[in-house]
Amino acid sequence: MLKTAISQYQQRVDHQLGHQIDALEDIEPKLKAAMKHGALIGGKRIRPFLVYAIGDMLKVPLESLDPCAAAIECIHAYSLIHDDLPAMDDDALRRGQPTVHIAYDEATAILAGDALQTMAFEILSKPIVGINAAQQIAMIATLAKASGYSGMCGGQSIDLNATDKQIDLQSLIQLHSLKTGALIVAAVELAIIAGKIDANEKQALIDFAKAIGLAFQVQDDILDITGSTEEIGKPQGSDLEANKSTYPQLLGLTGAQETAENLIQDALSALAKLPYNSQLIEEFARFIIERRL
Amino acid sequence: MLKTAISQYQQRVDHQLGHQIDALEDIEPKLKAAMKHGALIGGKRIRPFLVYAIGDMLKVPLESLDPCAAAIECIHAYSLIHDDLPAMDDDALRRGQPTVHIAYDEATAILAGDALQTMAFEILSKPIVGINAAQQIAMIATLAKASGYSGMCGGQSIDLNATDKQIDLQSLIQLHSLKTGALIVAAVELAIIAGKIDANEKQALIDFAKAIGLAFQVQDDILDITGSTEEIGKPQGSDLEANKSTYPQLLGLTGAQETAENLIQDALSALAKLPYNSQLIEEFARFIIERRL
Repeated sequence: MLKTAISQYQQRVDHQLGHQIDALEDIEPKLKAAMKHGALIGGKRIRPFLVYAIGDMLKVPLESLDPCAAAIECIHAYSLIHDDLPAMDDDALRRGQPTVHIAYDEATAILAGDALQTMAFEILSKPIVGINAAQQIAMIATLAKASGYSGMCGGQSIDLNATDKQIDLQSLIQLHSLKTGALIVAAVELAIIAGKIDANEKQALIDFAKAIGLAFQVQDDILDITGSTEEIGKPQGSDLEANKSTYPQLLGLTGAQETAENLIQDALSALAKLPYNSQLIEEFARFIIERRL
Repeated sequence: MLKTAISQYQQRVDHQLGHQIDALEDIEPKLKAAMKHGALIGGKRIRPFLVYAIGDMLKVPLESLDPCAAAIECIHAYSLIHDDLPAMDDDALRRGQPTVHIAYDEATAILAGDALQTMAFEILSKPIVGINAAQQIAMIATLAKASGYSGMCGGQSIDLNATDKQIDLQSLIQLHSLKTGALIVAAVELAIIAGKIDANEKQALIDFAKAIGLAFQVQDDILDITGSTEEIGKPQGSDLEANKSTYPQLLGLTGAQETAENLIQDALSALAKLPYNSQLIEEFARFIIERRL
């Protein structure tokens, strides 16, 4: 069930993204192609999955969720394009394909990232079926806060400046809650805004999102040690090589695995408070730490 | 009168921008400082001036215009930070000060630009005095369209790819109408959305904005030849050196000066159709081609 749902939502958001980019005028084909390369380079589409799966659980029509799923993936895609740049992580490959600055050039990669960020907000400011203007404003505010200085950008900056430095567990958790956690929480919040639920239920879903967001990162760090290069799509041990602090380094491999397991239990406890059929989301939470890629 | 108004609005938007950035949590002081450096490096603040001056002409309270002025300047500032990067125009100085990647580093400059773009949309998605949710959505849609692929980003990409190539007048006009014109038109549109005016008046103001946007660029090209390095704040002749197509190169210096003059006449004709006191805006239009910096 989970596998089918992941694949369906992945195809759905890819279709949305492709359509949004194809619909752009042909004023600058190179930039357009670079945006498409960056947006459709593949990936698990975890954020769109959460938008769709949580929204569907709250009985929101998928059509109302499409712009949220596409917008949050535009933000994620732009961040990967910029993170891969020579001045940042300097990665030539992502999911076995050349990164945008390799396939095109550095200037085009900077602009493609910039334009994908803008596109996220453009998508959310167009009329959305079943969503009123106040909800749209709340969606835009949520996505902006999660992706800017107080979220993803801030986390990426902390991460870059923490390279070659030993940081403690609390700092590592803060780093990841900003760098990757904020956008995962935002995915859930976008679905909540579309779904209109009460404050207690909202808090339970946000607790769920925070727990799986952190578990996702812990598992990423574990896979960097235990996964093969083929499975994880980047050189095995690249965190160690980049001299980054990781959970296994701070807690040991077993300690990191226990932490991931505890986080998923927290996530499942939060879900248990809700009066919805959350079976798919529960499976997804377990998948977060059982995945090999 | 114009000089006082320019200075007042400049101070007003600088205060807004400073306040917005100071209000950010201290989670990453380096990124915050880089954002502030880029946002407050000075400049004519032409886009905020247009927001305030047109809005004031339409009897919109300045408080309702502050977020528009700050947001559009965030977009302009982010674009300058990214344009100055080594992979783009590779400029070490802007207005006599080190550019962000020189004062900090390249990765921080990329992230500061990214976060300033996000901040623009965050500012416009917070409650605005006297502006309803539908107006806010229209403002966000306008700013996003003008700054993304179909506007500023697309124009910058065309510009980069046109370097070392001879392009014709029509292509040069399209390039500039995207790269700088779109955001100048957006400044006027933001004020129009705040002011609620009829469609004919709206069109006249947009015609005005298009004409001064293009005139601004023609005058920039003229100043690159006739201005001193001290006046224009960048090396005199830098366009020629960068092998960029310019209006004087395509039309001759006199032809370019005539074009700028004709555009300002078009702008003034558009203003003459309006039932408002547009004296300040008229002075501003003349200033666009009389300025020496």
